[in-house]
Amino acid sequence: MIRVNDNFLKLPASYLFSEIARKVEEFKKANPEAPVIRMGIGDVTRPICQAAIAGLRRGVDDEAKEQTFHGYGPEQGYQFLREKIAEIDYRNRGIEMDIDEIFISDGAKSDTGNIGDIFSRDCKVAVTDPVYPVYVDTNVMAGRAGDALPGGGWSNIEYLPCTAENRFVPSLPQGNPDLIYLCYPNNPTGTTLNRQQLGEWVKYAREHGALILFDSAYEAYISEEDVPHSIYEIEGAKECAIEFRSFSKTAGFTGLRLGYTVVPKTLKGFDENGKEVSLNSLWLRRQTTKFNGASYVVQRGAEALYTDEGRRQIDKTVAYYMRNAALLREGLQEAGLEVFGGVNAPYIWIKTPEGVTSWEFFDKLLNECNIVGTPGVGFGPSGEGYFRLTAFGRFEDTLEAVSRLKSLATRTTKKTN
Amino acid sequence: MIRVNDNFLKLPASYLFSEIARKVEEFKKANPEAPVIRMGIGDVTRPICQAAIAGLRRGVDDEAKEQTFHGYGPEQGYQFLREKIAEIDYRNRGIEMDIDEIFISDGAKSDTGNIGDIFSRDCKVAVTDPVYPVYVDTNVMAGRAGDALPGGGWSNIEYLPCTAENRFVPSLPQGNPDLIYLCYPNNPTGTTLNRQQLGEWVKYAREHGALILFDSAYEAYISEEDVPHSIYEIEGAKECAIEFRSFSKTAGFTGLRLGYTVVPKTLKGFDENGKEVSLNSLWLRRQTTKFNGASYVVQRGAEALYTDEGRRQIDKTVAYYMRNAALLREGLQEAGLEVFGGVNAPYIWIKTPEGVTSWEFFDKLLNECNIVGTPGVGFGPSGEGYFRLTAFGRFEDTLEAVSRLKSLATRTTKKTN
Repeated sequence: MIRVNDNFLKLPASYLFSEIARKVEEFKKANPEAPVIRMGIGDVTRPICQAAIAGLRRGVDDEAKEQTFHGYGPEQGYQFLREKIAEIDYRNRGIEMDIDEIFISDGAKSDTGNIGDIFSRDCKVAVTDPVYPVYVDTNVMAGRAGDALPGGGWSNIEYLPCTAENRFVPSLPQGNPDLIYLCYPNNPTGTTLNRQQLGEWVKYAREHGALILFDSAYEAYISEEDVPHSIYEIEGAKECAIEFRSFSKTAGFTGLRLGYTVVPKTLKGFDENGKEVSLNSLWLRRQTTKFNGASYVVQRGAEALYTDEGRRQIDKTVAYYMRNAALLREGLQEAGLEVFGGVNAPYIWIKTPEGVTSWEFFDKLLNECNIVGTPGVGFGPSGEGYFRLTAFGRFEDTLEAVSRLKSLATRTTKKTN
Repeated sequence: MIRVNDNFLKLPASYLFSEIARKVEEFKKANPEAPVIRMGIGDVTRPICQAAIAGLRRGVDDEAKEQTFHGYGPEQGYQFLREKIAEIDYRNRGIEMDIDEIFISDGAKSDTGNIGDIFSRDCKVAVTDPVYPVYVDTNVMAGRAGDALPGGGWSNIEYLPCTAENRFVPSLPQGNPDLIYLCYPNNPTGTTLNRQQLGEWVKYAREHGALILFDSAYEAYISEEDVPHSIYEIEGAKECAIEFRSFSKTAGFTGLRLGYTVVPKTLKGFDENGKEVSLNSLWLRRQTTKFNGASYVVQRGAEALYTDEGRRQIDKTVAYYMRNAALLREGLQEAGLEVFGGVNAPYIWIKTPEGVTSWEFFDKLLNECNIVGTPGVGFGPSGEGYFRLTAFGRFEDTLEAVSRLKSLATRTTKKTN
């Protein structure tokens, strides 16, 4: 009898984003002329920069000729790219990272999902709340989450609330977790931890023998000095943290698929006899066995991002989105809403008005402004009463959205008066 | 305490191919001038065909412009490609496959590895022997393999020997396995099952409630009429088989990364309460949660393979490799060796001479002919006494290899006389 992984069946049948899609579809059917602006899914809209396009073309040209054809590449990625990452993403920030500690992949979603393969099913997991759903769902699938709780969340996962009350700075865990997922700059709240705050997490993890799974997919959006781009800027992090990076939001590679994961050789786990095991070796084994490397063409595209020209171009795209973010922040504040994020991240996290739930706010924005966002509660129990808008749209659309939101506020105020 | 997945530690520290690489490295150090011909790893060498190159260029061009930019795509792949697959790979062979049954991915290695996520750890696994190591190693990692046996193999995996004695046609299982991996045309032996033989497997699986995981990565190399290209050519297979396909060997996409997996909606597994569960839904859930789709650019490249021009061009490349295969077959036979495969697959499976082990034959070929192949025992216990050569090299190199092998045979015969 073909027995399935019962943990899969614990997951709710409908996803957040499919529920949103369904609602938008229904609305458009009823209002076919409505000029809907989508600010829900965190996907980029600007084209790939010219430097990366040239890199991709070079990659394609190489594949067309016998002399330069590339078949199977190293599962952990080409050296030409890992060297650039070690130099520019790390050495230039004062961090020494061996290229054998860097693993190129088809994206951070795959890696943050697959990393669970190397850990025991008994590991206890902690996440900040709200949280990127992949961290939780993949642990549900692996059998680490326990059971779904009526109010949202899972019985064996420790949730660390991040709300306006604690300025989105999570308290240290109480339940002695083994694996702690941190994403900074944060998706969905758009908030960050400063150097001192992240330092406390590193201290905690080292003292408690925990591992931090640090997702810094949005580091390119950091504008403030005191916010670390990499957890390895914190001393001791090489003994307690794996870092996930992505080219998706840095360079618009969501459709091209490329990311990387850093697993320092100093990281140790323990086997059933308490013997030390290198996590770097385990991840290498996982990747060489279940993955065959990222596309050569895409790796050539990413390599070109590390030239002066490439870096200037991606800075420009990041600035384009962050202009949207500033516009949204200011517009929403002028409309009388309390907003967070948008300074070091392309996400705006809105406190819904008193007594209005995340989904009610979703409906209101869709019906009255024709704007699609994401209900905060979709990211976890502490997301209730919040709402996410992304700054990844076109500037013109963002302008128009802000104007609609302000006009909604005016109408609402008038009605109240 | 960070507890690791202890199953990883059961895997032997050194891989087959790294051991080969080490031996070749050592040989080259001692013999820097030796003109080594590599016929070990099954990687292609011909450039990507022009039609696919044009498709890739179109994909890159699209990513360069705002109007045609593609960000996140569907996790299961773009419709434009799934429709071509449904039409040309299936409908044209008389098989109706819904596009929702086709999942595009970054390759068959990922899919054959990741498919285990959706099954219970208690599932019993059977493999043909010798076998593509990924099937076994990923089940070791998942905890389904039991313990390593002294003579090779794993205690909880049923091995189905395929040797010259049974003409490489495995007997039906005895241990009532739930998951049966079949790869036809076969890697490493290069042999096939005909329609009637494969039909017996489908009949067995249906009668015993087992699932066949059918890897047809080499189907493009089939030259004989009676050999099925897809398991779904066999009636009833939609009730008992998942099929893995790859663009790697069909179109030289080993470096580009693209494959697909077919999970018919008729396939059922069972939960702990014996309730039916759709395997298609589980795989969709796995892919949407832990994967973010294959690269848009590469999917455009693959789409172009389904044009008349594209199909002509890949046929030509396949013919190029199969000319190598024929050359190798004949040359080795003339040299007095017993050989298999090479008619419907790009692999030649050599019976090593009486009393010569796989590794001894490896050393002999490396030292006396400067040819690198793969010892059969590396693919499983029943591979002992066999040796694999691939036809994926350059024609000139294959010619030269055959000439060296013949000359070795002459020298050996003279010595014996």
